[in-house]
Amino acid sequence: MNETIKLLQNHRSIRDFEDRPLEKDVVETLVKSAQQASTSSYVQAYSIIGVTDEDKKQAIMEVSTQPYVKDNGHLFIFVADYNRHLQLAKRKGYDVNFETTESLLVGVVDAALAAQNLAVAAESLDLGICYLGSIRNNTKKIIEILDLPEGTFPVIGMAVGYKNSNGSFKERLPLDTVYFENSYPEFEAVEESLNEYDETINQYYKNRDKNKREDNWSEQVIRKLSKMGEVRADIKDVLNEQGYLKD
Amino acid sequence: MNETIKLLQNHRSIRDFEDRPLEKDVVETLVKSAQQASTSSYVQAYSIIGVTDEDKKQAIMEVSTQPYVKDNGHLFIFVADYNRHLQLAKRKGYDVNFETTESLLVGVVDAALAAQNLAVAAESLDLGICYLGSIRNNTKKIIEILDLPEGTFPVIGMAVGYKNSNGSFKERLPLDTVYFENSYPEFEAVEESLNEYDETINQYYKNRDKNKREDNWSEQVIRKLSKMGEVRADIKDVLNEQGYLKD
Repeated sequence: MNETIKLLQNHRSIRDFEDRPLEKDVVETLVKSAQQASTSSYVQAYSIIGVTDEDKKQAIMEVSTQPYVKDNGHLFIFVADYNRHLQLAKRKGYDVNFETTESLLVGVVDAALAAQNLAVAAESLDLGICYLGSIRNNTKKIIEILDLPEGTFPVIGMAVGYKNSNGSFKERLPLDTVYFENSYPEFEAVEESLNEYDETINQYYKNRDKNKREDNWSEQVIRKLSKMGEVRADIKDVLNEQGYLKD
Repeated sequence: MNETIKLLQNHRSIRDFEDRPLEKDVVETLVKSAQQASTSSYVQAYSIIGVTDEDKKQAIMEVSTQPYVKDNGHLFIFVADYNRHLQLAKRKGYDVNFETTESLLVGVVDAALAAQNLAVAAESLDLGICYLGSIRNNTKKIIEILDLPEGTFPVIGMAVGYKNSNGSFKERLPLDTVYFENSYPEFEAVEESLNEYDETINQYYKNRDKNKREDNWSEQVIRKLSKMGEVRADIKDVLNEQGYLKD
């Protein structure tokens, strides 16, 4: 197993950082690594905002409600972005369309691939990272804080910094419940493996050092998903306001 | 610069593979690396289908219209997936909701982060990769070929294999047009840098070994985006059929 694969397979989210900002050259290395990720048809339909302003970090922390959104080495926001294409098109007399679901997928995937490259680059420098889906608690507010114009949408955030702890390894689903060859299986074919996984996760929550509890994977995620109808219910409206999903 | 960062910054898409399938243990290493990527709230809302069946590869190639969809070491399809959650919820008496735009974003981001980890792992083993957004030319057909049930949607594909060529390095947008601190800039602040980039890309197309042409980045992508209204216009309907975006 080479160093890169070891790194990928040893990922853990870090939520506790030293009070030490990332150096400018480190930020540049991370962003350059992000940029070299694949991009749909060379469109590069994303931007990255680095947030260093303390007031803005505070405001974003209030959206996310997590302290490590403020207390980290650097806060990155990954934005699906057709604004530069729109602006260039206006000047050249074209009419750019990014209103379909397909265009949203392109922007979200582009932003996510860049983000993951940045995460891997950061971890290779022994920095810690934590993704922040929680910026989507109030995308309208994030748009206001970062002055995000037409054609942009904040997809995901990431706190990066020098680690104060090593985080804990979270066991993923058994490979045979996530990876299938040639066709998607009947549920019965994966059910036993999912039950064994629940047992593993139940032991993990019961035996870990902090925050012990009685829980397992399926109970935890189904509880969460059963409430998803009410969670971040304004996302479609905010996307519409930014020019997305008009079709 | 460490090996991982060198690898990330040296990415190039490969579209020409040896006629040699990936070994089973290599596929397993890649999938395990993919699985360890971050996932929104531990939901793991994605699956990966490996396509090895020659007839299925042929059928997917006809959707993608690119020969390397058939001629590669292994073909991966990354699927946003709430099916296992749905099935578990039914058995436990919960009512799982994944009909909002937020749920689609979670599934697409989860699938994309896993895909990018798989890409990085593959390149660290000196394999070549090429993303295939082109599977979205006909998602209904992909769903049929792979028996994808309710709650699943094929987001992106990836051809992986032993390289027959080294690909070419595609220069990305200047860092100062993609990365901003604290707020999104006025277009005028990035315009000159974008123009210089167009000049660089113009020289690249003019001077490369094969397929020389007169083009630049902005012309190329704006041409593409001006037609996006008609491209893959059925995506929303297919998502609806799979249970997504009902709100």
